Amino acid sequence: MESRYKSFRYVESLSEFIDQQVTLRGWVYNITGKGKLQFIMLRDGTGIVQCVVFKNNVGEEIFQQTKELTQESSVSITGKVVSSEKAPGGIEIDVTNLEVIHIAKEYPITPKEHGDAFLIEHRHLWLRSSRQNAIMRVRAAVMKAIRDFFDGNGFKLLDSPILTPNACEGTSTLFETKYFDLGSAYLSQSGQLYAEASALALGKVYTFGPAFRAEKSKTRKHLTEFWMVEPEMAFFDLNDDMDLAEDLVEYIVQFTLKTCKKELEVLERDIRPLEKVKRPFYRMSYTEAVEWLVSNKIPLVQKIDGKDVESEFPWGEDFGAVQEEAIMEQFDKPLIIHRYPTDIKAFYMKRDPDNPKVVLAMDMLGPEKAGEIIGGSQREDNFDLLLDRILNENLPEEEFKWYLDLRKYGSVPHSGFGLGVERVVKWITGAAHIRETIPFPRMIYRITP
Amino acid sequence: MESRYKSFRYVESLSEFIDQQVTLRGWVYNITGKGKLQFIMLRDGTGIVQCVVFKNNVGEEIFQQTKELTQESSVSITGKVVSSEKAPGGIEIDVTNLEVIHIAKEYPITPKEHGDAFLIEHRHLWLRSSRQNAIMRVRAAVMKAIRDFFDGNGFKLLDSPILTPNACEGTSTLFETKYFDLGSAYLSQSGQLYAEASALALGKVYTFGPAFRAEKSKTRKHLTEFWMVEPEMAFFDLNDDMDLAEDLVEYIVQFTLKTCKKELEVLERDIRPLEKVKRPFYRMSYTEAVEWLVSNKIPLVQKIDGKDVESEFPWGEDFGAVQEEAIMEQFDKPLIIHRYPTDIKAFYMKRDPDNPKVVLAMDMLGPEKAGEIIGGSQREDNFDLLLDRILNENLPEEEFKWYLDLRKYGSVPHSGFGLGVERVVKWITGAAHIRETIPFPRMIYRITP
Repeated sequence: MESRYKSFRYVESLSEFIDQQVTLRGWVYNITGKGKLQFIMLRDGTGIVQCVVFKNNVGEEIFQQTKELTQESSVSITGKVVSSEKAPGGIEIDVTNLEVIHIAKEYPITPKEHGDAFLIEHRHLWLRSSRQNAIMRVRAAVMKAIRDFFDGNGFKLLDSPILTPNACEGTSTLFETKYFDLGSAYLSQSGQLYAEASALALGKVYTFGPAFRAEKSKTRKHLTEFWMVEPEMAFFDLNDDMDLAEDLVEYIVQFTLKTCKKELEVLERDIRPLEKVKRPFYRMSYTEAVEWLVSNKIPLVQKIDGKDVESEFPWGEDFGAVQEEAIMEQFDKPLIIHRYPTDIKAFYMKRDPDNPKVVLAMDMLGPEKAGEIIGGSQREDNFDLLLDRILNENLPEEEFKWYLDLRKYGSVPHSGFGLGVERVVKWITGAAHIRETIPFPRMIYRITP
Repeated sequence: MESRYKSFRYVESLSEFIDQQVTLRGWVYNITGKGKLQFIMLRDGTGIVQCVVFKNNVGEEIFQQTKELTQESSVSITGKVVSSEKAPGGIEIDVTNLEVIHIAKEYPITPKEHGDAFLIEHRHLWLRSSRQNAIMRVRAAVMKAIRDFFDGNGFKLLDSPILTPNACEGTSTLFETKYFDLGSAYLSQSGQLYAEASALALGKVYTFGPAFRAEKSKTRKHLTEFWMVEPEMAFFDLNDDMDLAEDLVEYIVQFTLKTCKKELEVLERDIRPLEKVKRPFYRMSYTEAVEWLVSNKIPLVQKIDGKDVESEFPWGEDFGAVQEEAIMEQFDKPLIIHRYPTDIKAFYMKRDPDNPKVVLAMDMLGPEKAGEIIGGSQREDNFDLLLDRILNENLPEEEFKWYLDLRKYGSVPHSGFGLGVERVVKWITGAAHIRETIPFPRMIYRITP
């Protein structure tokens, strides 16, 4: 028996119902008209369709009700689906019946321009706009692409916990909460350490959930709550890790191009740069990148006594946005930079056996100023070397006992990486600010609605 | 070009390589032998296979190394895949080469019985056991089934935030954290209110992430951090909501049966009760359920002055495990109980127009003592009635301003529900305790590892 809930139709499926009678339910995105005609642009979340209300077809009473509709009023509309070259999208509805569900009060977001602050304060309504709707649909496609990719390649989803007892990289950038009688718990910045345990149990795993950074950063690329996928693979070395990262990013971009044509059109995204995102991507070592910066005279800029002081970019310094963007100008596809200086990378990364001054880390930078979308590494699998790094960085050995266990009982080479969902959505959609890439953004100065 | 990372094989795919030479990488689950033969049970996370090491085939040196392998030592094994009726699973490996990667120190989890506390303390290693591995694989299948179901039915994934400013149902069961200069933030118990805003923007949405309850509850069914999926649908009434809930649960159970045969075998799960989980399920109203309790003499038991006092079950009281289990004994499929007393349900639920003493709520109970796996309702869509409930419950009106907006600008009937992943995994796997259904459980007395 067909469920009643399947009885009404959605705008996105109308092309299957040409010349048939359907009932749609949605909201008035816009309404215009004169004389005996009213044109309702009806949105139902899946799309927008023009509904033509002709007085002679619906009668005096319904026509009068139609004229009183306001922006965002909710209605049920029945009519015939017709092909129409004049209508936006090529389809319109010849209305035979209209039921008003609710007349909206004066809607705050009008077609005129609104300031950023106003829009974000009205995020619960702003999501209804075509542009935000399109970004959210692309986001959903990106999330689906990620899962399909991993599920289809033998990975098992194992969620790492959000509430964690240890403060891996210091407590200054962590949200802290009281945990019953057990002291403090911290909101996870990364599920990686847990994913390592899971990978040694299940082979290939991924963890995919929210992550938290209490960083006082106000750039256009930072959220305090964001979504991250972190695959972790037993028996993968750095090269395998980079290969997998390339496969994943190609899959996400090509899947989105295929399934979100309409959304990318609404967003007026030039898709030609995205069409190029196919393997192999580019790769260079950190050392090669520094050499390039030096020979192209891209300096390091440091604030000294309040002044910007420039110097030749020194080996050992981390790249900032300036360096990354300068390097990426040469590339029309993502670039992986690998083998970073040990001192600027995390304790769990494996030293390069050929050169202990660098670790087997890799970052993937996107083209079109996308910035870093992936960070990963081969993990240190030697018990003594890992313990050394933990002690050198003054981390509490006791709290890492379980993590060290992984190097005691059948240690194996293993690797993984993290990909930030919002950065990828920002890149693919061309959104102006990262806050538009998540339904309800959390930033240092915003926790509502 | 095939990635190198695809060059080694996994146990789960061995049946495709009969009579071929493969390389496997994994851990020694068990090893036995005598004379010139050693039998390694090799686990690689995807399965376990018997590897036969015959001295004459591998030579003296490798044979000696094999004899020194301990439980959980990591190895790379090359050999021919052969069909063998005697071998567990019908396949074994005729080893031609073996490389030791790492000799495990004395592994704490031996084949003997261990206590619960010991195992949970070693969760990072316990995950390697066949039983825990199987539960995790079922969990991954359940997560995948949920997403496939919604993605395949026109729903869009829109994540609700975890960090929220308001404490809907009082702060006593919420984890609290400082949020920069904006005061306190709370970890979300449910993404529903946000999902409602998303549904009115995108039509049919679901939010799927971790949820948190700082409840001092020690039952076998409670975690402080758990995963919940919450669909929310514009224009769905309570009946649509119940239909959708049935479709979802049928899909999850049947998908798991189809894709996790091996895992359910490892768990020795009798799958016959699960095979019956097909629509339509059973339904009764709360009032009918109370009538049944009364006529079957299932009493309400209350503690009065430290003593258990029994009385006839009165209309208006919430059901406990005793009542739910008594009712469920009659049913071989899930049961939906609907239309609960207004006073025991949340403020956002819509009153039944036919009887304002009850709300359009529904809970789904699973058979085999699965307990409540779904809770949902049609939402109050009338501005005045909703405001009334908010004020009556002394909730801060200002904090619900954005939520009330949804009833101001094109309010529509809408419904949704929440399904707890771990409860479903516990039911399907038959796990003894809910802590076995999530990779790293968080309970009132446990936040490590």
